[in-house]
Amino acid sequence: MSGPAADESAADPADKAGAIAIVCGAGGFPAAVAEAAQAGGQPVLLVGLRGIADEAAIGRFPHEWVRLGEIGGLLKLLKSRNIARMAFVGGLTRPELSDLRLDWGAVKRLPEIARALKGGDDHTLRGIIGIFESEGLRVVGVDAIAPALLAGAGLLAGPTPEAQARADMAQALALLDALSAFDCGQGAVVANGRVIAVEAAEGTDAMLARVAELRRNGRFRAKGAAGVLVKAPKRGQDLRIDLPAIGPATLAAAKDAGLAGVAVSAGRVLVLDKAASVAAARANGLFLWGVAP
Amino acid sequence: MSGPAADESAADPADKAGAIAIVCGAGGFPAAVAEAAQAGGQPVLLVGLRGIADEAAIGRFPHEWVRLGEIGGLLKLLKSRNIARMAFVGGLTRPELSDLRLDWGAVKRLPEIARALKGGDDHTLRGIIGIFESEGLRVVGVDAIAPALLAGAGLLAGPTPEAQARADMAQALALLDALSAFDCGQGAVVANGRVIAVEAAEGTDAMLARVAELRRNGRFRAKGAAGVLVKAPKRGQDLRIDLPAIGPATLAAAKDAGLAGVAVSAGRVLVLDKAASVAAARANGLFLWGVAP
Repeated sequence: MSGPAADESAADPADKAGAIAIVCGAGGFPAAVAEAAQAGGQPVLLVGLRGIADEAAIGRFPHEWVRLGEIGGLLKLLKSRNIARMAFVGGLTRPELSDLRLDWGAVKRLPEIARALKGGDDHTLRGIIGIFESEGLRVVGVDAIAPALLAGAGLLAGPTPEAQARADMAQALALLDALSAFDCGQGAVVANGRVIAVEAAEGTDAMLARVAELRRNGRFRAKGAAGVLVKAPKRGQDLRIDLPAIGPATLAAAKDAGLAGVAVSAGRVLVLDKAASVAAARANGLFLWGVAP
Repeated sequence: MSGPAADESAADPADKAGAIAIVCGAGGFPAAVAEAAQAGGQPVLLVGLRGIADEAAIGRFPHEWVRLGEIGGLLKLLKSRNIARMAFVGGLTRPELSDLRLDWGAVKRLPEIARALKGGDDHTLRGIIGIFESEGLRVVGVDAIAPALLAGAGLLAGPTPEAQARADMAQALALLDALSAFDCGQGAVVANGRVIAVEAAEGTDAMLARVAELRRNGRFRAKGAAGVLVKAPKRGQDLRIDLPAIGPATLAAAKDAGLAGVAVSAGRVLVLDKAASVAAARANGLFLWGVAP
């Protein structure tokens, strides 16, 4: 393992000399990271996972495509381009080993891959990172490439949270901390001192849809807006993998769930499209709060 | 507070002399408890919560009706019948204080009631129990009235769980233990070392429906049956309130979610309709396991 991600700061001019490879999963996030990296003077090479990454978005940057499972091909590509640093960005549904079309470079690493696929998402990604690092590549986090995308601290948008909301926030954070060891969700909803929902494999959007349903069917009752969605990485989480993220859609869903606001770990949660997220918080009367470390 | 529920064993003949009041919430469980108590020689008086308890089922036993919020009326009723012991059984959607039509006995206790309604379900029920105990009543648990309804230890039905299922079980139990302090769910699903779902306000049925959906949409992938639903009360939980329960429907839902089995805390989780639950486990090829304390 190389040093912590913080060593990889985009402020290091020596590191910027070469392009950084961004292995792109699903969603709009890889392109946002690429844009922020370029804006910071960091050349990028996007490597889209075929059938998973967004073709149009990837196409706007210098790019290549690989299949999931094409580990040998990806290593060869990075070597041929003299790329020393890489990052993994974007969503990925966990594959079954038997669904992967592995190339020879992957087959050679089958035991590591099989071990990686068994366990929580973090475990899987740590295993994948380990494979690339054992080939001499440095795997960095979004915090190193595009720090501007991370949440700030304090009130980021909307009304100041009231005492009950602050208490709900603290309770949700403590709960997520207690769950850290279990490599599961990075989100929870607490309202008026009661735990309404805990996120696991379903993801934040599905959890918020559930909370909205619980309000409609009366299992979560409250007068007016109440409760907080808290997103935070696990304690000691490797920030190079699976950084929690929110965006404008999260705020709209939180509004639909009747919540009073959304809180995130400052510096450790990504805010996709900050301007639109701030606008969505304001438009929906929700606070957006960054919990200082 | 009186002594622990274990002191209230139905084996104590002095206690059986008087009827025990069973305050009945929703579902078929109050009638099952009443039946088991009568079968053990314990006279019962069912007190149905109007609009909530099952009229036909309650009607089969000596019974009375009260409204939720009619605390003064209930205390008077119990006194007039010389009843010294009571239990709360069955489901209840948490009321908002403002939705309750409180009688004078309740209005007098408004601060306690308001305090009770703020926080998790356990906290609420503990507050309600406190109100009745401060009036000299002894509130007992289902474990005292109808111990036959509690899960036994070891293999209760179906195939012996394999090593991975045993490991998943242990992981889910540890997770529920870590969540004990947060007064939220009493259930979790772990499959092949990965936390798939954590139960909070939605309840077990909704959680299992979610897991089934996660299998259908590919976010929880596994070859064949995999994973375990574990139900366990919180560490140090007052067993007089909100004992976790499973039944034949739980096993059918676990099958639909593609799980390998269901595990419960022996002696601390209720099995509704044991014969049908055992039959459902066998018919669905699921194990039903009681985790010894």
